[in-house]
Amino acid sequence: MAEPVCFHLVRDLPAFKEGDDLVGMILERFPLRDGDVVCIASTVVSKSEGRTRRLEDYTPSSRSMEIAERLDKDPRFVEAVLEESQEVILESPFLLVATRFGHVGVNAGIDLSNVGGERILLLPEDPKASADRIRRGLQNDCAVIVTDTSGRPFRCGVAGVAVGWSGIAALRDWRGERDLEGRELEITLEAIADEIAGMANFLMGEAGGGTPVVVVRGLSYPKSGGGIFRPRELDVIRARLQESESRS
Amino acid sequence: MAEPVCFHLVRDLPAFKEGDDLVGMILERFPLRDGDVVCIASTVVSKSEGRTRRLEDYTPSSRSMEIAERLDKDPRFVEAVLEESQEVILESPFLLVATRFGHVGVNAGIDLSNVGGERILLLPEDPKASADRIRRGLQNDCAVIVTDTSGRPFRCGVAGVAVGWSGIAALRDWRGERDLEGRELEITLEAIADEIAGMANFLMGEAGGGTPVVVVRGLSYPKSGGGIFRPRELDVIRARLQESESRS
Repeated sequence: MAEPVCFHLVRDLPAFKEGDDLVGMILERFPLRDGDVVCIASTVVSKSEGRTRRLEDYTPSSRSMEIAERLDKDPRFVEAVLEESQEVILESPFLLVATRFGHVGVNAGIDLSNVGGERILLLPEDPKASADRIRRGLQNDCAVIVTDTSGRPFRCGVAGVAVGWSGIAALRDWRGERDLEGRELEITLEAIADEIAGMANFLMGEAGGGTPVVVVRGLSYPKSGGGIFRPRELDVIRARLQESESRS
Repeated sequence: MAEPVCFHLVRDLPAFKEGDDLVGMILERFPLRDGDVVCIASTVVSKSEGRTRRLEDYTPSSRSMEIAERLDKDPRFVEAVLEESQEVILESPFLLVATRFGHVGVNAGIDLSNVGGERILLLPEDPKASADRIRRGLQNDCAVIVTDTSGRPFRCGVAGVAVGWSGIAALRDWRGERDLEGRELEITLEAIADEIAGMANFLMGEAGGGTPVVVVRGLSYPKSGGGIFRPRELDVIRARLQESESRS
């Protein structure tokens, strides 16, 4: 039986705060090997990067107040979401936006859990840069995936996705590959970083903080490839939603 | 270090055809244990269930011919898609439908690869029932997930998803759980069957047929829970898309 691909939980990590040496804390607890894929929850990346904010730090614009009223949310929270966004896709019944780094998510992925009080936790400003920086700090030739959870159209529940990655292709490119009958594959791009991030998210536990780092060992993967956020001009569904929004 | 969760590829499976004993072929090649999650590509489930069709078996309706012309597709293929669908969500620039069993996918998940000639491969008629039947055939207390690949709005590439499951909850329910600060989690449902299916799909290889069965060992999971296909009345994005479709 060939070697399996195994997901290892990195246990006993502390609660993270700004300035914490995330890489050091991982290396102390888990002996990495070349080729490992280190999956890290965006929450701990954000905390170590000081992305916690206080609601009182935000002064709602009139638009934030309008949206907040419609959604029955704190206008300062809505202001925070808009400040993290490059574009609003839906204003109601939930606030679906594209973040400045291109990820489409409800409330720009801003987390109210595991922060407490009047505080919120933003996603990393540039999760791909965070993944690059973390990877450079590792003593082995590993890949890094920064994970978040995201809802999906058409399907119930949230699932883990990759918001940042380094040392691994977010997309595996099958172009030119042929199926068993020798015909070219119709499907040419596979979102492998999301496929890994989803399973890592399962093992981290949605309750977050629990086990925010999972290491995947024994996996073969392409090291470079395209990005995973669909460019708006290539996203038919996003365009249709924005049309419908502008009409409403 | 706690035991990892490991994905094992079930190697040397033959090409499947109608009537093949899928369960027997798996058991011959891989010694299952209680608690294993057996992930099986929908393509081999469909083949063993005789879901291969010939395009010549379909007589296109006028609607199929209209759609086919707009999409520059074979009207018999479009007819096959419509016959597998309960509802069309988008007619162009691709044909997005809800299948009779509730899964939303392009072309009703009908596969042109790995079939050959003028043939197509439909998804299993009821993948959940397929998963139940397969699970009953296993000699251990295992879970079964039937996987397919699916595109996603907002993100590039396809990823593996669960279209059928048995002996495992498609959704983990976190309602009532609290975060590290003791506040109720905002996110209450996690699509764990999709998270597993995605990673299994990565290991199966999009080129299909390759390794269509992957066994996950060492995982703790809830055995029962809700379904994963979002009911249309709870799917804001689906409703908006259908509005936009009816306008166009």
